[in-house]
Amino acid sequence: MSSDSDRECPLDGDPHQQEMVPSKKSAVLVDGVVLNGPTTDAKAGEKFVEEACRLIMEEVVLKATDVSEKVCEWRPPEQLKQLLDLDMRNTGEPHHRLLELCRDVIRYSVKTNHPRFFNQLYAGLDYYSLVARFMTEALNPSVYTYEVSPVFLLVEEAVLKKMIEFIGWKEGDGIFNPGGSVSNMYAMNLARYKYCPDIKEKGLSGLPRLILFTSAECHYSMKKAASFLGIGTENVCFVETDGRGKMIPEELEKQIWQARKEGAAPFLVCATSGTTVLGAFDPLDEIADICERHGLWLHVDASWGGSALMSRKHRKLLRGIHRADSVAWNPHKMLMAGIQCCALLVKDKSDLLKKCYSAKASYLFQQDKFYDVSYDTGDKSIQCSRRPDAFKFWMTWKALGTLGLEERVNRALALSRYLVEEIKKREGFKLLLEPEYANICFWYIPPSLREMEEGPEFWEKLNVCKHVHHFKSFLATKQAGVKQRGRRRACVRQLEAPHGHW
Amino acid sequence: MSSDSDRECPLDGDPHQQEMVPSKKSAVLVDGVVLNGPTTDAKAGEKFVEEACRLIMEEVVLKATDVSEKVCEWRPPEQLKQLLDLDMRNTGEPHHRLLELCRDVIRYSVKTNHPRFFNQLYAGLDYYSLVARFMTEALNPSVYTYEVSPVFLLVEEAVLKKMIEFIGWKEGDGIFNPGGSVSNMYAMNLARYKYCPDIKEKGLSGLPRLILFTSAECHYSMKKAASFLGIGTENVCFVETDGRGKMIPEELEKQIWQARKEGAAPFLVCATSGTTVLGAFDPLDEIADICERHGLWLHVDASWGGSALMSRKHRKLLRGIHRADSVAWNPHKMLMAGIQCCALLVKDKSDLLKKCYSAKASYLFQQDKFYDVSYDTGDKSIQCSRRPDAFKFWMTWKALGTLGLEERVNRALALSRYLVEEIKKREGFKLLLEPEYANICFWYIPPSLREMEEGPEFWEKLNVCKHVHHFKSFLATKQAGVKQRGRRRACVRQLEAPHGHW
Repeated sequence: MSSDSDRECPLDGDPHQQEMVPSKKSAVLVDGVVLNGPTTDAKAGEKFVEEACRLIMEEVVLKATDVSEKVCEWRPPEQLKQLLDLDMRNTGEPHHRLLELCRDVIRYSVKTNHPRFFNQLYAGLDYYSLVARFMTEALNPSVYTYEVSPVFLLVEEAVLKKMIEFIGWKEGDGIFNPGGSVSNMYAMNLARYKYCPDIKEKGLSGLPRLILFTSAECHYSMKKAASFLGIGTENVCFVETDGRGKMIPEELEKQIWQARKEGAAPFLVCATSGTTVLGAFDPLDEIADICERHGLWLHVDASWGGSALMSRKHRKLLRGIHRADSVAWNPHKMLMAGIQCCALLVKDKSDLLKKCYSAKASYLFQQDKFYDVSYDTGDKSIQCSRRPDAFKFWMTWKALGTLGLEERVNRALALSRYLVEEIKKREGFKLLLEPEYANICFWYIPPSLREMEEGPEFWEKLNVCKHVHHFKSFLATKQAGVKQRGRRRACVRQLEAPHGHW
Repeated sequence: MSSDSDRECPLDGDPHQQEMVPSKKSAVLVDGVVLNGPTTDAKAGEKFVEEACRLIMEEVVLKATDVSEKVCEWRPPEQLKQLLDLDMRNTGEPHHRLLELCRDVIRYSVKTNHPRFFNQLYAGLDYYSLVARFMTEALNPSVYTYEVSPVFLLVEEAVLKKMIEFIGWKEGDGIFNPGGSVSNMYAMNLARYKYCPDIKEKGLSGLPRLILFTSAECHYSMKKAASFLGIGTENVCFVETDGRGKMIPEELEKQIWQARKEGAAPFLVCATSGTTVLGAFDPLDEIADICERHGLWLHVDASWGGSALMSRKHRKLLRGIHRADSVAWNPHKMLMAGIQCCALLVKDKSDLLKKCYSAKASYLFQQDKFYDVSYDTGDKSIQCSRRPDAFKFWMTWKALGTLGLEERVNRALALSRYLVEEIKKREGFKLLLEPEYANICFWYIPPSLREMEEGPEFWEKLNVCKHVHHFKSFLATKQAGVKQRGRRRACVRQLEAPHGHW
């Protein structure tokens, strides 16, 4: 063994130079450290937090509703590196310098709360979830056992129960986790466990080829999940969609038969409620019929579209969702709970989630505690420490009530409707298709092409122009983009448009 | 298709009752929604945020250093449900009521910042990471592309670079992700991809049985990862440890030979730097030699022990870590960055992380943007939206400097040393073993057993007493617990002990 670990250490100077010298007789000195000396100056620390909070209030919260502010002080990477002092040095910076850094970080960051910020996942500032998020950061809990997170575990239970109610299940189970992609992974693994519980211990080696079905318009996390879970991206079977981006049930059934014929083992259908690009909703009832006939797990990725369940007017988009075995639903999108707030919901109540995921770590999940250990939900998770994400959604729900959340959804979809009509009226804009949801896809036709006929030459030129303008509705937005066929470019444009803060 | 979606909706009343009536002539009314009416009362919202911040400051931040405050106002689940108003109703609550709820949530939550809170993951309040966390919650970014997260992507790059430097690699790659468990999953999948890139597309079906090696004292996430990734928990080979909980290299090599003989395909060794229970550090140099001989990927789970790399005095615990192919390291533990702050670091610079994880979603990761798209790191992730966790650690590093972080580690380990000496001196306490790190395992011997000889009867009685007292050091703590053999019970006790705030 060499002593290269010292050599590797990128610190300069004498290792002992920073150690304190005991200043009083009763000092407890161990290994050169004065144990009973002060560590941090709490008063100065508190003052720093107070000043930073004031800065955040002024520069982020109060400016969030100000349309005259910039969405982003844009700088390219190399230039931004010059502007920010990113280096971490041997000695620390004083508080006033840290506050300047905070101000710069805010200045050059994208104001995702801005009324004119239409890109991806955002719909303005929600004061209630923001307060909940400040609280959880200050309390810094980890949601695995009741003894360390009593309130947040009960809140999660209450929120899951309510979401299950809106899906239309009588009972169920679930877990908040770090994203819709991860929710989809959870569901895929759960379906696999249900199909063959032995896989948990034995793995996939030597088994027939497992295969799953989803629409050609599904989120890319399906491929990521299949790859991560050892199923393989080639075993994700992409079912053809109709002109509106919805899975064609007959094609699904054909593919299932085909896979069986080829000796593969179908185990899962992932329908999408609210596809990423077109905002399409797969026909869940028809798909559920097929899943029943073939004994397949039905997972619905409603990460984006799940919010429509809150609206009596729009929940019909998800007709049949109560027949799903699992659902992914992200309140951090249209419902504005803040990133990350994502639930996987499961219809099963035989503790399948726990059976599938438990590792029974005895140091954490002792069975002989002085309370009902069914509240120790951490063993249902792939994580160990876990954030209290449900709390943010709970706070907003408490503040607005179900009716207020419904109004949020109705408003977002009414705004989308309005935009569609404006696009139809405005010269140089061409709607791609009548939207079902808040995704509105359209072309911007530059003046030079407006008189041209819509033949192959027109489309080629439009592509070359690189001016595909893709729009999400004004308040309710998510991952933006246009499905790319050939050489196009998706970009997001900000238009002057009706907004909550006229 | 039935119209049961309306029936399922758990909302009472007329769907139109909440809609606003246009109050001015220019009102834009779409689907019963007044689009240009106000949505939220920004002034009232801002006032609410201000009041809540004051409450958080008073009840969480200022009380964090007050030892006379309770760590937790403990209530069992059923009673706490009665005390908290968890129900989500049709109509919302007024601000003053929400503030009361916030107060209750704080009151009944565990004060993880409290100087006397010794359980799991915590080491007091870090004012700098707290400010960073408030900022990121207010800015609500998602770190996948430079255009939406310019500052946070550059910060992550800078932090990863610095962590790589402390590991002792010349260069490398990495990604912040939602936990040490997830980091270990990332590494396992990466090692598998390196072993056989085809698995990404083809999956594990039909392949020989992949097998990985880790110590019997490893974190339980190894089993979770093997199960989730389709490898199977039985293909995690647990290598025997010595009396101090360290993997025995000779046993590792024996197991590798044995697995090969049985026709399995070894692909990965996971060493642990800082085991969960005993705080043991596997001998990395010897393990690296074996990995080199057998062509195996070496992952080091330094989620807990990685912090020692910041100390010139203690980094020798991880001697040889620069020979690892990947490292998991959680600054949210001893370095106090707040949950979650976890990095997976990878030595490879051939873009293996991206090759392994990319799904090339064209709607998000366009290749023809107006800046260097290598900054769009989102496609290295299993997540889509991702939190800016690196920023919290960056802020603390800026504030304290490398020397301040070093002092934090040195102090934690000096405190551990002090506790060990106190245990040795105090009647009724029995040290389990001399610790290497901040995990201190000891027995509390009740008075009735103190005169008894240490035979089988003694141990049986001690077990029945259920008084195994397990201790983590005073400042630096993580997942606590005692390895359970037979019927013991791990619990965490708070003792009066030296702390930063005497």
